[in-house]
Amino acid sequence: MSTVNERLALLREQLRREHLGAFIFPTADPHNSEYTADHWKGREWISGFCGSAGTAVVTLHSAAVWTDSRYFISATQQLQGTEFLLMKIKLDGTPTIAEWLGSQLADERDKEVGIDGMCSTANSVEQLISDLRRQGGITLRTNLDILQRIWTDRPSIPTAPIVPQPLEYTGEDTRSKMTRIRKALRRQHADGMLMTALDDIAWTLNLRGSDVHCTPVFVSFLLITTQSATLFVDEAKLTPDSCTSLATAGIATASYSAVKEALARYPEYNILADPDEVSYTLMQAIRAQEIVKEASPVPALKAVKTEAEQQGFREAMLHDGIAMVKLLHWLLPAVEAGGQTELSVDQKLTSLRAQQPLYRGLSFDTIAAYQAHGAIVHYEATPATDVPLRPEGLLLLDSGAQYVNGTTDITRTIALGPLSEEQKRVYTLVLKGHIQIELCKFPSRASGTQIDILARKDMWREGLNYLHGTGHGVGTYLNVHEGPHQFRMEWKPAPLVAGMTITDEPGIYLPDRCGARTENTLLITPYKETEFGKFLQFESLTLCPIDKAPIVLDMMTPEEIEWLNAYHQRVFDTLSPHLSSEESAWLREACSAI
Amino acid sequence: MSTVNERLALLREQLRREHLGAFIFPTADPHNSEYTADHWKGREWISGFCGSAGTAVVTLHSAAVWTDSRYFISATQQLQGTEFLLMKIKLDGTPTIAEWLGSQLADERDKEVGIDGMCSTANSVEQLISDLRRQGGITLRTNLDILQRIWTDRPSIPTAPIVPQPLEYTGEDTRSKMTRIRKALRRQHADGMLMTALDDIAWTLNLRGSDVHCTPVFVSFLLITTQSATLFVDEAKLTPDSCTSLATAGIATASYSAVKEALARYPEYNILADPDEVSYTLMQAIRAQEIVKEASPVPALKAVKTEAEQQGFREAMLHDGIAMVKLLHWLLPAVEAGGQTELSVDQKLTSLRAQQPLYRGLSFDTIAAYQAHGAIVHYEATPATDVPLRPEGLLLLDSGAQYVNGTTDITRTIALGPLSEEQKRVYTLVLKGHIQIELCKFPSRASGTQIDILARKDMWREGLNYLHGTGHGVGTYLNVHEGPHQFRMEWKPAPLVAGMTITDEPGIYLPDRCGARTENTLLITPYKETEFGKFLQFESLTLCPIDKAPIVLDMMTPEEIEWLNAYHQRVFDTLSPHLSSEESAWLREACSAI
Repeated sequence: MSTVNERLALLREQLRREHLGAFIFPTADPHNSEYTADHWKGREWISGFCGSAGTAVVTLHSAAVWTDSRYFISATQQLQGTEFLLMKIKLDGTPTIAEWLGSQLADERDKEVGIDGMCSTANSVEQLISDLRRQGGITLRTNLDILQRIWTDRPSIPTAPIVPQPLEYTGEDTRSKMTRIRKALRRQHADGMLMTALDDIAWTLNLRGSDVHCTPVFVSFLLITTQSATLFVDEAKLTPDSCTSLATAGIATASYSAVKEALARYPEYNILADPDEVSYTLMQAIRAQEIVKEASPVPALKAVKTEAEQQGFREAMLHDGIAMVKLLHWLLPAVEAGGQTELSVDQKLTSLRAQQPLYRGLSFDTIAAYQAHGAIVHYEATPATDVPLRPEGLLLLDSGAQYVNGTTDITRTIALGPLSEEQKRVYTLVLKGHIQIELCKFPSRASGTQIDILARKDMWREGLNYLHGTGHGVGTYLNVHEGPHQFRMEWKPAPLVAGMTITDEPGIYLPDRCGARTENTLLITPYKETEFGKFLQFESLTLCPIDKAPIVLDMMTPEEIEWLNAYHQRVFDTLSPHLSSEESAWLREACSAI
Repeated sequence: MSTVNERLALLREQLRREHLGAFIFPTADPHNSEYTADHWKGREWISGFCGSAGTAVVTLHSAAVWTDSRYFISATQQLQGTEFLLMKIKLDGTPTIAEWLGSQLADERDKEVGIDGMCSTANSVEQLISDLRRQGGITLRTNLDILQRIWTDRPSIPTAPIVPQPLEYTGEDTRSKMTRIRKALRRQHADGMLMTALDDIAWTLNLRGSDVHCTPVFVSFLLITTQSATLFVDEAKLTPDSCTSLATAGIATASYSAVKEALARYPEYNILADPDEVSYTLMQAIRAQEIVKEASPVPALKAVKTEAEQQGFREAMLHDGIAMVKLLHWLLPAVEAGGQTELSVDQKLTSLRAQQPLYRGLSFDTIAAYQAHGAIVHYEATPATDVPLRPEGLLLLDSGAQYVNGTTDITRTIALGPLSEEQKRVYTLVLKGHIQIELCKFPSRASGTQIDILARKDMWREGLNYLHGTGHGVGTYLNVHEGPHQFRMEWKPAPLVAGMTITDEPGIYLPDRCGARTENTLLITPYKETEFGKFLQFESLTLCPIDKAPIVLDMMTPEEIEWLNAYHQRVFDTLSPHLSSEESAWLREACSAI
């Protein structure tokens, strides 16, 4: 294993050879993935900073990493002892990458900067080109995968097998999906499209892989035209079953690296390619009558779950709820007995989930965050940070799993014993916010931006807030974070329609003190139709008691109490037949009315 | 007075002479005004349709008017007996203007269409050019003011005198405003700007006019650079006082028609011109180093009221409240006595307002809408539609005035006697929505889109809704509808900050039955500052009792009742010293706690 400084030396040698003043390493792969395969973790390799978001930039004489407030603490630690500076995004005085390069390269001869155009979206590169031009005319070179030259032990592109996802869980075959995609493309005046998002491809083809941590996708591209469709993939990964499945659906295959060349073959077509998804290099490679630079129609199709998918979610949630109840039933006595830590609870929960039918792994790394750690939104316990749990204070537990019939995402904040008044107050405000979303009825096609405030309004009266979104879509045995819709303060025009899943996860984080978050995954269902149109509502898919111990009853409205009691009754009725009598007795108490 | 058909004949003669296949008449002037001076009411003149929004299009053999659902009924009536078809915007099957022209001109030789480029924004014309091109290559001619040739009795551009708005009411002199505008322009990398919005010009220069119905603005352009500023205006309209005022502020003047030529004189400047505000013709006329096509910084500056403006609003609202209370005190006995109609109430209210100090006129035409008329959102009673008021049902009264120290906008819905259960229910839901906005506390710089739902969420549970926005900014003795912020379902990124005014006006409209709306004008004020930043709240500027008779008490939360009682106490305490003992006694009862 080389050190960061050794890697920088190798990089700078290449920079000099190529007459480049700097190189930029964003967090990205050719598929604009949220979680990338190790092969594309170049920013992590060059800088040593391993947060899920950040960009490293290295010049001949300086180096810096830009990241957001979630990672200020961990980035500081991880960059220690390297020459990387930490650039805190959104803080006053922090330069943009272009501004910083403008000052760093002011006196340099080589005013060209490199980035791997295959691993950055077309729009982000276009923006960078324009920003750099304003910095004394810095130019951008995009056709150099510099990591390939210097990262000698670079992991290869994953080769996990690809398997069919049965129709019983998808509810719609690939031919039908292709027909709907082509119809949507026609509405966008396109004859075809380049699909690069791995979950969109897996959904369209009813195939799953395991190329990426926590996400059952496989590295590939899919090129669709009116007449044909080609999957660009390492063909060795296709099992006989998935070959049959592709053949039945009329999908041809070609090698993963052949996509760029293939994009030059459609001069008579209008090809849709979303510049916020497709890489700069592939966008440049397209030779079409017209490139329709619009959002892909697939996320909106994928977001609306079929009846079979909805049924699958209900079953997956039943089993996830059983695992969670077993954990909660075990937790307090275990903490009381001593010897438990954040990591031991994480491991216990994972082992309980692994016993459930159709379990395939976690949907993201569990967050088990005790007391002050709960205030670190993306905390992940490591042996270095792990702390013992004491019978007091709050444990925030955000976790989820991949089951073949659905993906789960749940957060509970649990009182391990006595709490401060502040902790109870914060917990109750979060719960009220959660319930206000659960109670919301809204016109079909409303936006999540409109609804988001319901989770915050009671906090705002107390001068409290949280800076993350309130909810995101959840895939069906796919990405735990799925678009296009969200609940969040920023504008998300994607309309909410019946059949979508969405999480409901408000939180409050008091730095160095504690954090509380309560999350269920919801399904959007019809509510009523009136002269004002169709109205929708939410159904809680998640089945798990919400800790009543921290609730300040005076702060709850009668309607909120009524919702909680009804939810708990449903949790008990649904889960108890699947539990031991001891667990069931515990659940009865956990679900009793307040 | 010529008839619509005679006017069409004159127009078509010109179309043939100019080899044009059609002409488009939007509702617009060179200033993108909401309300235009009569000189620019060309769409109304050619079609006879006088709604506030709509576009007329005339070909050699056909004619049509596009308008939205607010005007379907009145447009149908007004277009009767003409050859104009009514095109109902947003209904399935209604073609766009470009689509319709595509089909109408399919077999014509002249594939060119005209529009007055001086009276349509740059962006709207660019969009039209692109849409028409797709319709078999129709082209657009923009340099012909065809109305000038055929509208022989066309009203001239208004010539009302321009007077200074005293510093006592503005709280900031023009030099200071210019400094802030220039600073904002620098942040947008501009050295100057073309200001075309009449209220922005009036605000910047601390001048007022009376060129437009209900709006104290004057027709002009303002061109600002780093060194100079020129007001393009009919100089005969400037009083000696306003000349002094302009000279003191260092503003030059030139004739109104000289602006186009002047725009060619700044080749070394970056000139900001908002393509959603500036006309196509003027945008084309700019010769600059760079045209910065961004939103003008002025609306956001104007929206934040100075201390003097806030104080002025409070005084204007006191007097507006006195007029409203005198009206309400008079109303029920007058209706009981008989002989009152929508129009007579309108006249009575206007006469009461006219007795108030600093009154200068209405801020918009009063909506006095009885029973089913209340469901027509933009109803304006005319002798033809006027109905007698009976001692039963709901009267919706939406009105406002211009005072030198502030502009008012208030809606009350009043029970004239017994109500149906549905009316009470609808009234109470609207009131709850109104109060939920009043109660909201929110982080500084939140958007109105986030907050809008608070007015709707209780309605949505009953399957009810309204399709207009929930609120808009209000000018200081300026436009009653002022940007950039709003409460509405669509995205409005303009951040809400302390010092802004905004109306709170949810409603419910049951076609052919009734309508209810309750509106106060609010001021945004500081609430508290915590570790999560600055939080804001609303202060009701409007002072007038809200009718308690229709309230279904069971539907109100304790907090909503508490707000109403506290508001009423403040209304009584503030207004009663200014009322007769009889009026005061009435107000005491109207403001008593529920």
